[in-house]
Amino acid sequence: MKTTPDSVGVVQAQTLRFAEPLPLQCGESIAGYELVYETYGTLNAEKSNAILVCHALNASHHVAGVYADQPDNLGWWDNMVGPGKAVDTNKFFVVGVNNLGSCFGSTGPASIDPRTGAPYGAAFPLITVEDWVDAQVRLADALGIVRFAAVMGGSLGGMQALCWSIRHPARIENALVIAAAPNLSAQNIAFDEVARQAILTDPEFHEGNFYAHGVKPIRGLRVARMIGHITYISDEQMAERFGRQAKGGAKFSFEPEFQIESYLRYQGDKFSEYFDANTYLRITKALDYFDPASGAGGDLALALKPATARFLVISFTTDWRFSPARSKEIVQALLDNGATVSYAEIAAPHGHDAFLLEDPRYHALVGAYLGRVRAAATEAAR
Amino acid sequence: MKTTPDSVGVVQAQTLRFAEPLPLQCGESIAGYELVYETYGTLNAEKSNAILVCHALNASHHVAGVYADQPDNLGWWDNMVGPGKAVDTNKFFVVGVNNLGSCFGSTGPASIDPRTGAPYGAAFPLITVEDWVDAQVRLADALGIVRFAAVMGGSLGGMQALCWSIRHPARIENALVIAAAPNLSAQNIAFDEVARQAILTDPEFHEGNFYAHGVKPIRGLRVARMIGHITYISDEQMAERFGRQAKGGAKFSFEPEFQIESYLRYQGDKFSEYFDANTYLRITKALDYFDPASGAGGDLALALKPATARFLVISFTTDWRFSPARSKEIVQALLDNGATVSYAEIAAPHGHDAFLLEDPRYHALVGAYLGRVRAAATEAAR
Repeated sequence: MKTTPDSVGVVQAQTLRFAEPLPLQCGESIAGYELVYETYGTLNAEKSNAILVCHALNASHHVAGVYADQPDNLGWWDNMVGPGKAVDTNKFFVVGVNNLGSCFGSTGPASIDPRTGAPYGAAFPLITVEDWVDAQVRLADALGIVRFAAVMGGSLGGMQALCWSIRHPARIENALVIAAAPNLSAQNIAFDEVARQAILTDPEFHEGNFYAHGVKPIRGLRVARMIGHITYISDEQMAERFGRQAKGGAKFSFEPEFQIESYLRYQGDKFSEYFDANTYLRITKALDYFDPASGAGGDLALALKPATARFLVISFTTDWRFSPARSKEIVQALLDNGATVSYAEIAAPHGHDAFLLEDPRYHALVGAYLGRVRAAATEAAR
Repeated sequence: MKTTPDSVGVVQAQTLRFAEPLPLQCGESIAGYELVYETYGTLNAEKSNAILVCHALNASHHVAGVYADQPDNLGWWDNMVGPGKAVDTNKFFVVGVNNLGSCFGSTGPASIDPRTGAPYGAAFPLITVEDWVDAQVRLADALGIVRFAAVMGGSLGGMQALCWSIRHPARIENALVIAAAPNLSAQNIAFDEVARQAILTDPEFHEGNFYAHGVKPIRGLRVARMIGHITYISDEQMAERFGRQAKGGAKFSFEPEFQIESYLRYQGDKFSEYFDANTYLRITKALDYFDPASGAGGDLALALKPATARFLVISFTTDWRFSPARSKEIVQALLDNGATVSYAEIAAPHGHDAFLLEDPRYHALVGAYLGRVRAAATEAAR
C-alpha cells in the first residue's frame, strides 16, 4: 500500500444522482446525471470547514488516499491533501468531485443516455467550466455546504476556482488558483486542436459513437496525450531527465531510440487504455472556451468584479503551458479591483506538472495560507 | 506570374543520375539515384562564385523563380535569392538541390527501387544530414565546383551548412548557418516523435508500403504537419495573428471556431496532399540524429575543429524551435577554436519561420556578408 502515516488512508467514492435537469452553457440541459465524489476529514457542525478540490484534464474525484481493493491507486493530490499536510484533513473537510462529462464515474459520453438506452457518445453535450461549477454547486447543496472555506485547483482546476469566485461569490471564501490562466492563448488552443484532430480523424472514432462499434480511437488518443505531455514538462526538465540520451536500442529504425521517445510512447499507451476519447475532446473544448473576460468586453478586472473571495494565486517559473505571466494577469485584475490577493511564483524546474509534485516551499505556502483560512472560516461561522 | 524585376524569372529543374553507390551512415548504400537541382546566375570561369543553398524540412531545389508552366510556383527563398538580392545572382552562381529521400524529384521512398521495380517504401534507407552533404559533394563534382564560395541554409539547411564545414572543410569558404542548432533538444525530438507516431499509427501507412495499397496516410501526415506548424510560429506571433478570435461559426461543436484552428487545418490539409509520409519520417529522423558533437565526446568545439570556413550565424529572437541560445552554442564553439565568425540575433516576431520571411535587416545582413565573400572568392581564385 502506498499510504503513509500522513495519508487519509483507505477511502471510498460516493455517488449522488441529480434528477433535476442542469442547464448548460451550450443551450442544452442534462437530466438524471450522477456525480462521483470523495470526502476526507470531517465536516464541522457549522459546515464551515469544507474545501472543494477541482481536478484538471485527466484527473478525478480520487484526490487522496487509496481504495481497499486498489492499494496502489493513490489519489492524484495525495501529497497535498491529508492529515497534517498542506490541505490538512484534521482541520478541513475536503471534497473531490469528478466533473460532468468525465470518464471516471460521473455521467459522461460513455454513460447510458436514458433517452436512448445506449451510450451518449457524440450526443453528450459540450460542457464548460461554468457547467462544471454549476454542477459542483448542486453537490455542495446536497452536502449542506452553503459556503466553502476554499475552492482550489491547479491548471483547469484553478480555472474552476476562478470561475467559482465570479459565478458564486457568496459561496466561496477563498480561491486557490494554481498554475492557471485567465484563458487559453492561441498557442494553447493550437495544441488542443491538434490533439482533437488526432482523435477526430482516427477511423475508429466513428464520429464519437465508437462504443457501438466495439472499438476505441486508441491511436488518436495516444497521439493526443503525447502532444499534451510535451506541454506539461519544461524544456529544461526534459533536457535534464532525457536529454539526447539514446535508449541503447537499434539505430536507423523507427523504434524508440531516444529516452524521450520511450517516455512519450509509454505515457500515450497508458492514457489511451483508460481514458475516453469523447471526454478528452470535451475537456479540451472546455479549456478553449474558458474566458471569463469575454463576457466583459475583454476586461478581466470587470469580469472579476463580482468576486468577494480572498485569493492565493501560484505559478511556477518553468511552466510554459500557463506561464507566470498569465497568472499575473489574474493577479493584476484582482488588484485593480482592490481584492485581497496573495501571489507566489515558485522556482521549480518541472514546468506545468509542478503543481502536482512534491515541493516543500509550494506545500508550505499552501499550508500557511490555509492555516489562516481556517481561522477566518471559524470566525465567520460564529 | 509572381516574379518581379529582381526575380531570377523562369527557371528549369535539372536532373543528374549517379550510378556509383553512395555509402550511407546507416551502413547501407544507395546506387543509381538521381538528384534534382536548379541553378541561378552564371558560374564564372574560375568556378569560384558558386553558392549552395540547402533546404529544410519541406522545401526543395526550387529556391527562386517560377516555372514556365507554373507561373505562381515561386521558389521558397525567392525573397533572398535573385539579381540584386541578398544572394545576388548577378554575382553568384546559386545551386539549389533537392535532398536524397525527398519527394520533389530526387530519389526517395516513392521512387522505384531498381532492385524490385516497385517503390522503395519502407525499404528506403534512413538518411542523415551527413548523407545529404555527401550527395551534394557529388553534385558539386559533377558541376565542376571544387570549392563553394558559400554553403547556406536555414533550420535543417543550416545544419547541412554546418556539416559541410566539418566534413568537407576544403570545399567551402563560408558557411551561413541560419536559425539552426548544433543538435535537437529533447523537446525538439519529442515533437518529431509525436509527428512520427501520428504517421506510423495511421492505418493507411501500411508500414511504409502504402503505395502498393493505393492509399496515403493523409490523416497522420496532416496531424504531423499541424504539430510542426505550432513550433514554427512564435507564441507572440500566433497571439497577434490569431489571438482568441472566433471564426464566427457554430459554437459548441468540433468544427473550427477559433481562427488558429482553421489555419492549422488548412496547413495540415495542404501539406498532406503533396508531401510523402515516408519522406517526412526520414527527415525528422535526420534532424534527430544530427549531432556533430556526439562524435567528439559531446565537445562541439572539438567537433568543429576541422572547419576552416568563415561563418555567419544568424538567429531570431522569437524562434523557440531553435532559439538564439542554441545558435550561440555554435558561435561559442567556433570562437573557442579561434574561427572567424559573425553572429547576429535578429529581433523578429515570427518565430522559426522568420528565416523564410522578408525582413530588410536580415536580408541586408546576408547581403553585406556575401558582398565580402565575393571579393574573397575572387581573390582566392586569382
